[in-house]
Amino acid sequence: MALAPWRAPLARALHRNRSRPDSRYLQLATMDRDGYPANRTVVFRGFFESGDRPMLVSDTRSAKIEQIQANPAAEVCWYFAKTREQFRLRGELTVVTAETEPAELRLTREQLWHNLSDAARQQFTWPSPGQPRQEQGFAIAPPNSTQPPPHFCLILLEPNRVDYLALRGEPQDRIIYTRQGQDPWQAQGVNP
Amino acid sequence: MALAPWRAPLARALHRNRSRPDSRYLQLATMDRDGYPANRTVVFRGFFESGDRPMLVSDTRSAKIEQIQANPAAEVCWYFAKTREQFRLRGELTVVTAETEPAELRLTREQLWHNLSDAARQQFTWPSPGQPRQEQGFAIAPPNSTQPPPHFCLILLEPNRVDYLALRGEPQDRIIYTRQGQDPWQAQGVNP
Repeated sequence: MALAPWRAPLARALHRNRSRPDSRYLQLATMDRDGYPANRTVVFRGFFESGDRPMLVSDTRSAKIEQIQANPAAEVCWYFAKTREQFRLRGELTVVTAETEPAELRLTREQLWHNLSDAARQQFTWPSPGQPRQEQGFAIAPPNSTQPPPHFCLILLEPNRVDYLALRGEPQDRIIYTRQGQDPWQAQGVNP
Repeated sequence: MALAPWRAPLARALHRNRSRPDSRYLQLATMDRDGYPANRTVVFRGFFESGDRPMLVSDTRSAKIEQIQANPAAEVCWYFAKTREQFRLRGELTVVTAETEPAELRLTREQLWHNLSDAARQQFTWPSPGQPRQEQGFAIAPPNSTQPPPHFCLILLEPNRVDYLALRGEPQDRIIYTRQGQDPWQAQGVNP
């Protein structure tokens, strides 16, 4: 299947900004239970099966998972400091655990666990995130790299709107990509 | 009045990351009219009267202003790449225009207009942001620095919850600051 039209400029931005480790950090906004947006930095883990769905990983014990399960609507904001480009990807999130169907999703979850560093895997052995601070429980041997703990999860974003802004240029370039359901993507140049 | 307890670590992060211009960029999440969170990069313009309210500027013709006027709930995510610290500031936004009371707010709006670069001011002469791209209307002389156009606005964030995470450290440090109404701030160390 052909990639979405915003994938080429995003791949180019990832490539041109690859010297900066934080070019793989983006901000994920969801809705919290009090009616506020919640916004935090997460790490891009590649595209699911090299397609159009960005992948993140998380801990099902974290507040964001409860938020996503109540309301999957999300927008990520991805700013590339070196090339001064911004991608906003709006859509729906899916949380993948050991019980999720189909099997490809579970397999990808296991691969992402395997690909993490020992330090990243170790965080999943820590006490529940966001709970009052415990002084114990942070010094446990690194977990098995082939067997993710039950609370390790994959998050997939299925975008339905992408807003691309290139700050270089006078005036700047801005394109909004949208799709309805599984229709083809539409692109519209807009004023910056 | 005493500053909020999260202001000292935030001031320190701003100082330690000052060599990177993008340390003044943060991501603002609001709610859009379709029930999605909306998330974009904005520029920090200092604290109102050196207090606890971060300031941003915007164009009342942009989508975010309509969103804020329908629902002032917001969270900004501010990631400092050099020191690997994150501040999430949740609260309510106020949009300040030429008509807003009291006069101090209007005066600050005028000062921020005056402090902008010519290039930043010029963007406010451009056609309406987010509308289908026009090829004309982008090459107008820089506007008067003492007289903001009516659609130039100041945005103030009044935080009621701040989530501070220092990624350096093993385990990491995380503190959640909250306040109810005008009560004093409470700080709670939590698991990262």
